[in-house]
Amino acid sequence: MDAGTATTAQSRWRPRDAAPTLPGPYLLFLGDTTEPGFAKTAFGLSDWAGDKCVGEYCLPEATVSTGLKAMTPAEAYAAGARSMIIGVANPGGIVPASWLPAMVDALNAGLDLISGMHSPLASNLKMRHLADSLGRSLIDVRCPPANIPVGTGRKRTGKRLLTVGTDCALGKKYTALALARAFAERGLDCDFRATGQTGIMIAGSGIPIDAVVADFLAGAAEMLSPDADEDHWDVIEGQGSLFHPAYAGVSTGLLHGSQPDVIILCHQAGRQNILGLDQYALPSVEEAIELNLKLARRINPAVRCGGVSINTSHLAEPEADRLLDRESARLNLPAADPMRGGSRFAALVESCLAG
Amino acid sequence: MDAGTATTAQSRWRPRDAAPTLPGPYLLFLGDTTEPGFAKTAFGLSDWAGDKCVGEYCLPEATVSTGLKAMTPAEAYAAGARSMIIGVANPGGIVPASWLPAMVDALNAGLDLISGMHSPLASNLKMRHLADSLGRSLIDVRCPPANIPVGTGRKRTGKRLLTVGTDCALGKKYTALALARAFAERGLDCDFRATGQTGIMIAGSGIPIDAVVADFLAGAAEMLSPDADEDHWDVIEGQGSLFHPAYAGVSTGLLHGSQPDVIILCHQAGRQNILGLDQYALPSVEEAIELNLKLARRINPAVRCGGVSINTSHLAEPEADRLLDRESARLNLPAADPMRGGSRFAALVESCLAG
Repeated sequence: MDAGTATTAQSRWRPRDAAPTLPGPYLLFLGDTTEPGFAKTAFGLSDWAGDKCVGEYCLPEATVSTGLKAMTPAEAYAAGARSMIIGVANPGGIVPASWLPAMVDALNAGLDLISGMHSPLASNLKMRHLADSLGRSLIDVRCPPANIPVGTGRKRTGKRLLTVGTDCALGKKYTALALARAFAERGLDCDFRATGQTGIMIAGSGIPIDAVVADFLAGAAEMLSPDADEDHWDVIEGQGSLFHPAYAGVSTGLLHGSQPDVIILCHQAGRQNILGLDQYALPSVEEAIELNLKLARRINPAVRCGGVSINTSHLAEPEADRLLDRESARLNLPAADPMRGGSRFAALVESCLAG
Repeated sequence: MDAGTATTAQSRWRPRDAAPTLPGPYLLFLGDTTEPGFAKTAFGLSDWAGDKCVGEYCLPEATVSTGLKAMTPAEAYAAGARSMIIGVANPGGIVPASWLPAMVDALNAGLDLISGMHSPLASNLKMRHLADSLGRSLIDVRCPPANIPVGTGRKRTGKRLLTVGTDCALGKKYTALALARAFAERGLDCDFRATGQTGIMIAGSGIPIDAVVADFLAGAAEMLSPDADEDHWDVIEGQGSLFHPAYAGVSTGLLHGSQPDVIILCHQAGRQNILGLDQYALPSVEEAIELNLKLARRINPAVRCGGVSINTSHLAEPEADRLLDRESARLNLPAADPMRGGSRFAALVESCLAG
C-alpha cells in the first residue's frame, strides 16, 4: 500500500487497497436498540452494501430491525459471514456490558468484530484476550492506517469527484454513494472512496479522515484515491464544511488532497444555521461553491462544480420538486435530491460526466 | 486546564496554562554537532528565551556553540537548571547512540529531558526505565495534550494576532516572537502562543498544532489562546500556508480557531515556488492576504491585515530597504523585516495596535 504506486482499475463499485480491507461478509449487530436513530450504521449498510450483509443479530430487548434475516453468530458464519459489525451507536460511545456476551459469541463463532465506536474494542481486556487466543481481529474503523505520507500535490491519473457541503450531516455520504452507484450502472469504472466510519463499513475500506493527524490530512486524501486509469472515477465522500468553525481544516485538507475534477455541493433545504452552532449562519449555496472551487483550483485549475445535491427529506414531493427546479434555474446548474432519483438526478449525473 | 475557562491576564511575555508548562530553566544540549543548521532550536532558544537558559552542554566533537556558558549537567543543576533540552536535530530524527551517555548524565544530575525529535524519548527503554526510577520526566514537545476539545467558534475575550504565510519556513515564528517582544516592550500585556516545537520550547508551553488529530484542529487553537482581559494580546505563531498542498488544512484550522483580530502576512523576498514543491508557484502577497482574511472573517468579521513581514535575510541592507519601501507603497500597508527592526518594524507594530 503506497500512495505513489499506480494501480490499474479493474474493479467496479468495489474499493481497492488504498487502505486495509474489512473482512466480509458481515453480520449486523443491533444490540438492544429501540431507537432507530441509533441504528443509522446498520441501516446504511443494509441500504448500500446489502450484498455484503448476510443477516442481523439482536438482543431480545431490541425493537429495531433492518429487515435482514435474524441469525446467531454461528448461523451467520455458516452462511459465509466473516465479521460482525456493531451497527448501532449508543450515547456514550462505549460498548455496554449487556452487549458483551453477544460479542463473545461472535468471536467464538469465528467472526472478527468491527466497530466505529469511540472507545476501541481492544480497551476491553477480556475481549482482547479472547480475540488473541482465538486468532480473531478487533477492528476499529475510526483508526487510520499508520503509514500515511505527507501530501505532495502531485497530479494523479484518473478522474475524481468530491462531495462538499454548506454544513456537516446533510447528505455528503449518501450523495457520493448514489453518484457512485449511478456511475457504475452506466458501466463506468468507479470506486466509492470512504472518509468516515459508516462509509468505510459500506465500502469495506477507506480512511477516517477526521482521525488523521493534521500534518497528514492531504496525504491521507491522496492515499485514498491513488493513480488510476484515465477513465476511472473515484467518488469521494466529503467531510465537514469550509464554513464550519470546528471542521474547516479537515474539509480543506480533504479538498486539496482529493484534487477533484468535479465537486458536488450538498445542502439541506431550509437549514439556516450550522448544526449545533446557532450563532453561525450557513453560507449561501453560491458562496459555498465559489470558495470550494477557489481552494480546489490551487491543486487542479480545471475543477468545476457539477451541480447541487439538496436534501429534501422533510418536504412533500411537489414542494421538493418546485424547490429543486427553482434552485436549478437560479444557479444555472443541475439540482437534485439523490434520494428521490428521477430525471433531475439523471441530469446531475450527466453533468458530472460531461467534462 | 479548560478552553472554556476565563483566565485573567497577569503575565507579561510569559505563557499561561493553555498547555502543560515545560520545566525550566534549561541546559541546552548540542550533541556532537558541527553543522550550525542542525542547531536551530538551540539558537532560537538562546536568542528568544536567553533568560531561561543557564548554559550549554556539548560533546567533545561539537564545533557549534550558542555562546552560552559550557556546563556539565551537574553544574547546570547547581546553577538552577531543571531540564536539558535537545537543541539539535539530526537527519534521521532519532537520538544517536553517541548522545545517550550525556542524556543519562542529565537524568542522574536531576534534570528532566525535553525533545522535539520525531522518535519519542521513551522509545529508548533504558532511558525510560532510568527516568522512571529517578522520578524524572521525558518530555516530547511534538506530543499534543490529551484533552483537546472540538472547536466551538465561541467569541473569546482579549485580542489576538496570528502570523500567516505565503509558504512554510519563511519567518512566521520569528515574526510572532518579534511582535510579542515589541508589544511587551511597549508595556502591553501579551503572550506569545507557540504552535511548533521550537516555539513551544521558547514559550515554555504551547500546542504542536500539526500533531493534533484533524477533528480537533480548531479546538486546539481555541485552547491555545483562551479568554483574557480585553486589552491582553495573544500573538500566535502561524503554521503552514493556505496555499500549501500538504498543510493548508492545518493553516485553516489554526486560522479559524485563533479567531484573530489582526493577521500579519509573512513572505520571503524572492521566493517563487513552494519550498520542496517546485511545480507550485507561491501566491502573490495580495492574494494571500485576501484569502486569509476571507476565511478568518467567517469567525471574526472585524479581522484586518496589520501589514507584511518580509524575510530579507539574503539581501544587503540597501536592497532590503528599497524592497520593503516598494512593497509598503504598492500594498498600502506597513512592510518590515522584524530581524532588521528599525522604523519600518515600529510602524508595523503600531499598525497592529491601531485597531
